Amino acid sequence: MSGPREECGVFGISNHPEAARMIYYGLYALQHRGQESAGIVVGDGPDLVGHKGIGLVSEVFREDNLGKLRGSSGIGHVRYSTTGSNRLVNAQPLTILCHRGPLAMAHNGNLVNAGKLRRQLEEEGSIFQTTSDTEVLGHLVARSRQKDFLEALEESLQRVEGAYGYLLLTPRLLIGARDPQGIRPLVMGRLGEAVVLASETCALDAVEAEFVREVEPGEIIVAESEGGGFRSIRLPVSPKTARGRSTGLCIFEYIYFARPDSDLEGANVHLVRKRLGRILAAEHPVEADVVCGVPDSSLSAAAGYAEASGIPYEPALVKNRYIGRTFIQPDAVQRTLGVRLKLNANRKVVEGKRVVLLDDSIVRGTTSRRIVRLLREAGATEVHLRIASPPYTFPCFYGIDTSTSTELIAARKKVEEIREVVEADSLGYLSVPGLLKAIDRGNGHCLACFTGSYPVPVPVGAGKFALE
Amino acid sequence: MSGPREECGVFGISNHPEAARMIYYGLYALQHRGQESAGIVVGDGPDLVGHKGIGLVSEVFREDNLGKLRGSSGIGHVRYSTTGSNRLVNAQPLTILCHRGPLAMAHNGNLVNAGKLRRQLEEEGSIFQTTSDTEVLGHLVARSRQKDFLEALEESLQRVEGAYGYLLLTPRLLIGARDPQGIRPLVMGRLGEAVVLASETCALDAVEAEFVREVEPGEIIVAESEGGGFRSIRLPVSPKTARGRSTGLCIFEYIYFARPDSDLEGANVHLVRKRLGRILAAEHPVEADVVCGVPDSSLSAAAGYAEASGIPYEPALVKNRYIGRTFIQPDAVQRTLGVRLKLNANRKVVEGKRVVLLDDSIVRGTTSRRIVRLLREAGATEVHLRIASPPYTFPCFYGIDTSTSTELIAARKKVEEIREVVEADSLGYLSVPGLLKAIDRGNGHCLACFTGSYPVPVPVGAGKFALE
Amino acid sequence: MSGPREECGVFGISNHPEAARMIYYGLYALQHRGQESAGIVVGDGPDLVGHKGIGLVSEVFREDNLGKLRGSSGIGHVRYSTTGSNRLVNAQPLTILCHRGPLAMAHNGNLVNAGKLRRQLEEEGSIFQTTSDTEVLGHLVARSRQKDFLEALEESLQRVEGAYGYLLLTPRLLIGARDPQGIRPLVMGRLGEAVVLASETCALDAVEAEFVREVEPGEIIVAESEGGGFRSIRLPVSPKTARGRSTGLCIFEYIYFARPDSDLEGANVHLVRKRLGRILAAEHPVEADVVCGVPDSSLSAAAGYAEASGIPYEPALVKNRYIGRTFIQPDAVQRTLGVRLKLNANRKVVEGKRVVLLDDSIVRGTTSRRIVRLLREAGATEVHLRIASPPYTFPCFYGIDTSTSTELIAARKKVEEIREVVEADSLGYLSVPGLLKAIDRGNGHCLACFTGSYPVPVPVGAGKFALE
Amino acid sequence: MSGPREECGVFGISNHPEAARMIYYGLYALQHRGQESAGIVVGDGPDLVGHKGIGLVSEVFREDNLGKLRGSSGIGHVRYSTTGSNRLVNAQPLTILCHRGPLAMAHNGNLVNAGKLRRQLEEEGSIFQTTSDTEVLGHLVARSRQKDFLEALEESLQRVEGAYGYLLLTPRLLIGARDPQGIRPLVMGRLGEAVVLASETCALDAVEAEFVREVEPGEIIVAESEGGGFRSIRLPVSPKTARGRSTGLCIFEYIYFARPDSDLEGANVHLVRKRLGRILAAEHPVEADVVCGVPDSSLSAAAGYAEASGIPYEPALVKNRYIGRTFIQPDAVQRTLGVRLKLNANRKVVEGKRVVLLDDSIVRGTTSRRIVRLLREAGATEVHLRIASPPYTFPCFYGIDTSTSTELIAARKKVEEIREVVEADSLGYLSVPGLLKAIDRGNGHCLACFTGSYPVPVPVGAGKFALE
Repeated sequence: MSGPREECGVFGISNHPEAARMIYYGLYALQHRGQESAGIVVGDGPDLVGHKGIGLVSEVFREDNLGKLRGSSGIGHVRYSTTGSNRLVNAQPLTILCHRGPLAMAHNGNLVNAGKLRRQLEEEGSIFQTTSDTEVLGHLVARSRQKDFLEALEESLQRVEGAYGYLLLTPRLLIGARDPQGIRPLVMGRLGEAVVLASETCALDAVEAEFVREVEPGEIIVAESEGGGFRSIRLPVSPKTARGRSTGLCIFEYIYFARPDSDLEGANVHLVRKRLGRILAAEHPVEADVVCGVPDSSLSAAAGYAEASGIPYEPALVKNRYIGRTFIQPDAVQRTLGVRLKLNANRKVVEGKRVVLLDDSIVRGTTSRRIVRLLREAGATEVHLRIASPPYTFPCFYGIDTSTSTELIAARKKVEEIREVVEADSLGYLSVPGLLKAIDRGNGHCLACFTGSYPVPVPVGAGKFALE
Repeated sequence: MSGPREECGVFGISNHPEAARMIYYGLYALQHRGQESAGIVVGDGPDLVGHKGIGLVSEVFREDNLGKLRGSSGIGHVRYSTTGSNRLVNAQPLTILCHRGPLAMAHNGNLVNAGKLRRQLEEEGSIFQTTSDTEVLGHLVARSRQKDFLEALEESLQRVEGAYGYLLLTPRLLIGARDPQGIRPLVMGRLGEAVVLASETCALDAVEAEFVREVEPGEIIVAESEGGGFRSIRLPVSPKTARGRSTGLCIFEYIYFARPDSDLEGANVHLVRKRLGRILAAEHPVEADVVCGVPDSSLSAAAGYAEASGIPYEPALVKNRYIGRTFIQPDAVQRTLGVRLKLNANRKVVEGKRVVLLDDSIVRGTTSRRIVRLLREAGATEVHLRIASPPYTFPCFYGIDTSTSTELIAARKKVEEIREVVEADSLGYLSVPGLLKAIDRGNGHCLACFTGSYPVPVPVGAGKFALE
Repeated sequence: MSGPREECGVFGISNHPEAARMIYYGLYALQHRGQESAGIVVGDGPDLVGHKGIGLVSEVFREDNLGKLRGSSGIGHVRYSTTGSNRLVNAQPLTILCHRGPLAMAHNGNLVNAGKLRRQLEEEGSIFQTTSDTEVLGHLVARSRQKDFLEALEESLQRVEGAYGYLLLTPRLLIGARDPQGIRPLVMGRLGEAVVLASETCALDAVEAEFVREVEPGEIIVAESEGGGFRSIRLPVSPKTARGRSTGLCIFEYIYFARPDSDLEGANVHLVRKRLGRILAAEHPVEADVVCGVPDSSLSAAAGYAEASGIPYEPALVKNRYIGRTFIQPDAVQRTLGVRLKLNANRKVVEGKRVVLLDDSIVRGTTSRRIVRLLREAGATEVHLRIASPPYTFPCFYGIDTSTSTELIAARKKVEEIREVVEADSLGYLSVPGLLKAIDRGNGHCLACFTGSYPVPVPVGAGKFALE
Repeated sequence: MSGPREECGVFGISNHPEAARMIYYGLYALQHRGQESAGIVVGDGPDLVGHKGIGLVSEVFREDNLGKLRGSSGIGHVRYSTTGSNRLVNAQPLTILCHRGPLAMAHNGNLVNAGKLRRQLEEEGSIFQTTSDTEVLGHLVARSRQKDFLEALEESLQRVEGAYGYLLLTPRLLIGARDPQGIRPLVMGRLGEAVVLASETCALDAVEAEFVREVEPGEIIVAESEGGGFRSIRLPVSPKTARGRSTGLCIFEYIYFARPDSDLEGANVHLVRKRLGRILAAEHPVEADVVCGVPDSSLSAAAGYAEASGIPYEPALVKNRYIGRTFIQPDAVQRTLGVRLKLNANRKVVEGKRVVLLDDSIVRGTTSRRIVRLLREAGATEVHLRIASPPYTFPCFYGIDTSTSTELIAARKKVEEIREVVEADSLGYLSVPGLLKAIDRGNGHCLACFTGSYPVPVPVGAGKFALE
């Protein structure tokens, strides 16, 4: 609703008699990571076959097209457009044919040197059919002088820079690769004799797979399409990794992206978010009558704030669950209905009350202002906005859809100015130390959006439509 | 998820330049009351024009078909099939042509004497094109000897028995009628010069209309399509109303149907549900570590139980929001995935814990058992099921989709037997006095499903497909 | 293309294990009679089930919906809208429920007293859901005091006036009824043990049924759904039939509507049309180099004209076969493309030639003018238009879509004036005696559109939208 | 119906304010050349934008998607799958991005060395996304060392071998290229200031463009997207062209593919086909009562045969025009309906008659046999089959869908044996000299399918799915 928008979820499975169906359910559990397109590719003897389309998993797949995807191994993808606009040609998995045979790829993340690599490849005579950075990896693999496919893949992954959780499929292999900094998440599970790879643990739960471990930063998992075995390859530590910079899993996975019932690095997302709220309550206390959160991502933090502050928690904002892609937005005349149709304030809960409103982040500030107004119109006497993360100040180049700083209000305004814009009575952000205290796994994290310290050097001009 | 299924929501507006669009937003806010079909009819000079279809409001309507519905007055309907199966011909509003001109009807509820009236009408030579009981009222109005349309309507409403919130539309009038016992809800609001009628107050909020009052039991509100005025007609108290029986608004509107941000009889639904949870905690205390509820309808009761018991509340069950009509259900082989795809237990929250699980009701017991198992598989050491209503023992004939007692587990088994079926460590139902204490508005309520005391005599054999 | 537009085709079959599929093929063969909607209803135990939709037979039916129509007896309909506009609610067969049970009706033709009957029925309290005249018959049957269904039907058919080929279906019976004047066609065939009823013999051919005979004017054929037997009932000769007027099969079935491979009253349509062309050549000879016809309806007449005149026949106009309902028409800027996209003149065939152009009729004259121009632009030095029927002067009230005389150019202008409008070098119409000479079956025909002598008295104001 | 199936039609236009709409109408006129997919790409500033889909032109394009294709220059394609199966990814135009910028390609024909080139390209590291041979040309252009785009294109076209009418589009240029043997057709026209390129002249007529001339074998036409000028480049005569072999326009364009109102090499297709029929009458006379042809491709030849023989022509076979992609084919039980649903014999025309049946070719013989039987069932006493071309004996590798000789009945059987298979009373094929006499333009033609003398050497194993 109010947070930054994440791009993709991936799910793969090998050695399962109902691979496509399991991927369907896995993608469905990852739907919160991308609602614009969905796709599945599975092995079919020496070929790869697939189906993809614009829309939700349940809209794109029906019994007739899912039933045609036989084969015991496959990968799937749900996409929120990051690089490249929302055209079907950019939907994933992307399948290519090269001298090594067919190869399908599904990608969560963003390659910061995709533009440069693409220009090099084009100069060497490569042709592209999409504007997606995913296609670049396919070209590198096809052009690699390495005879062995896996060596070619390894070499190619060393040439790309950025953040990724990649799934690849050949007729014989299911492969998962995570970027050397471990910015984008990727987990491994087992379901009987099947190997499962997914962006989040909630997708393992959906198919009743057992969590094994996270794929390590810089690790490549290679599973046979049939047989159930797998092995691990490690990319050499990239010399390009910026030294002395905070690096590791994207902190926004904790704050906003992941489902509350997923675990990240062994920690439950809901419980981490509650801790964010508890610490925020200590950092920015306020006298109030009721605490509420913006559904769904901020409810855990609100509960934590309520517990720590002793102010009662109430679900004062009710979200309409039925909004769809084709929903008819109010036109200019009915503009004030905009937020209200998605979110209604429960008047009886806030009337005459001083309200603490928790949100996960502020991007532009416009949504926050609308929600503050909604609460006042429902009778709240005061609205104190509390943000369960530090000011979002620097654009992300690793797969989150905010690639220019001009749209980030915190890049241009101080906290007090932001408070004025969002019309809150007070505004408090969680501090970076408070954030780290709540998460505190000792692994390090990518905090670039809060600190500007990018773990991977960002080329000038990199951005969402750089390739288009 | 686990509760009984409600049938319909209605929304009407008169004297508004964007009537169809306001109805669209109103129906969207009422989408929780019915997801199978949606329809809108508006006046268009001397005619009525409309569009309806199978699916969600946002699926049925697009700019092209909504844009054709001009006219300043109209009615809309979302339907969960009660009487009649899910065929487009049964979608509402239903438009008929008779000597009085065109008439559209949208109906929430169920007429218990529809079968008898239909047989009479058929014997007199009437033909029917739907199996919906709504069509019966149209025939009665057309056949009435009363010259005046409103008198004919009044006479006809006196012939039907049952529960209804009816909206009717002619080229000149918008009419709302509520059954004499007030079993089904209907509220009135104003939006500038427009009169608004809706099943719930949350729909008034959606269009920023001001709540005026509930339509009274047995009241007919008549608003001019243009002009902004309205008047009230009262049906005579029906001599057929069973004396000495509890009667009034359906108690299940409080327990399950209404959105938590709606108000019923001046009481906020969320706050009433919290009270149900508080009283339930007093009636059925248990030693436990965590309280959770089945989303979404039981979260308020769970919060109330937690507050009263001092046991911490946690959202241990996470619901997948993206399931759609076309979702591919797991087949027999993957049967255990059934509940899990919709609902995931957050392992880190329940592992090693004694869990109190709140639900609004138990119909067959199968869903409850699956959720209890889900919690145990996630590591709960004990699961104590608490139901925020009395045992659901008697079928409803007034619009809720449980018209035979054989499917109601409480009609056949004692509480301890039900506990065994659902595999809970303990099971506690709210008592009828506890229920009334929580609601306690002095107006009386229809409690037939708990007590068997039906406010309107039910004919033998009445049931969902009685007309088919 | 240039002729009047016909309304409907009907097809029914009893006692066949694949009834729905046979109806599908039968309707497909009758597609030229109506392309706007298609529908099939079959018996299903005590019920009738069906499917209908907007579009061609091959668009409306797919394996999934056709496969659900089991049952050994059924009726189908293709519709070109005559009475009532093109809304799905008016698609046929129309199914009603009354005290006699379910009844489905499919109707080719038009009831001239439908408006009057409808007003009577409405005054007696009937409600209507369509604007189709077909529904009127259902009401009459439902209201008849006759106990027996067939007697009720017989009584009802005596109350309606006009032209019809009616098919009716109950769970036990397949019924075909033809109007007492025999204006609309209806034929009977056998396919093994099955009875087949259809608008034209080409539909019998499509399912490899054997032609038995035409249903007689005023005859009702009653076949058991199972068993293979049938019997015949005769309506009494209507006293309302205008005496001394020409009556019988609509002459336009010969001229335009029927497929050339159908037989009418024992005569092959293609051969009759060739005779029309031969006689026309005698009545309106001209010196010319080539004869051509407007595809498809006028090709036979052109061949006849060529044979009789000795002028060579050439297919100078080529029709594009792929135009569909959703074809994007040229806008104002490209207006001249209008006819050309459907029809192209073969320049090499007409360049420098004097062309005789055959058409079946002239309605408004605008299409004729465009075709004349097309030929001139392709190099024709002269264009002599010959019409294989007399001037179309009087509107039809029996099922052809020209219900006001204002749009008929021959009602307002003399032949020489029409020639000027269509920009032909000469114009010759077939005479009424010439027409009768070509057809000459001794049965009489409805010639009202040429002579104004209506076999059934037409009420003032009867017309297409009279009921709306 | 009974002939070989052609693959594609192309249409391009430069410098026209309504380019996309003109392409739409042009493709619509070429729809007979391919009904499986349709696509249009136009320039849009520095980009190319397009839309394509499975189905007819009128199904794939609607106002909403056509309206988005602005730009003054563009190309379009209708496809019957030749190389590559019917998947959307293979629909054309194909758009690629390379260092030269975006490039769209639409291709009619087949490259016989596509497989070899593809393997080379793959070994050099190219990746492919389609199985279409069209993509090969894009790679060659991208990889060419020539700096200038046109020089790179010229070089690339010299590397491909086979038959093609290629249209290419860049943001600045519209290009048409025809293979050096001129096997596939391509014509040029003018529409005001616009340059038009199309597979057939009937598409020029459709948009009212004036025919200028045929694109010459080995010629490349280069038109500016804006400005209206164009220039011509000639490919050097290919040393690979087999000497001493008949070469030139595919003879089957005359016999079967082209629309009768198109002109090929200055000759009208209908008139050429009539000549084929006349010569066939001289070569294979027979005593008979009536001549008919298989619609639509053989009607002209039948008319010619009738004229030369003096036997009357009659349209004895009536084709159903409404069959669509989604038509439900009769299953095994109703197999005999197969041909009959598409084609009905007019009994009254053939009953008791000796029939001469004209067809354009015999591929497998099964369809011919069904039509012969159809005529006999309608009462024909004799059926004499006359084929307006020589025996189709050798597979085509230049774009016609018969790439193995095993399916060609004439490759395995003598004429008398074929006669037995098709159950005709006599069978006569046109001779090769007779064929050439009818066409006789002095340019030479590709007659490989009749003579086995392939103008371009065919690699071993080339065939439709060679690339898949």
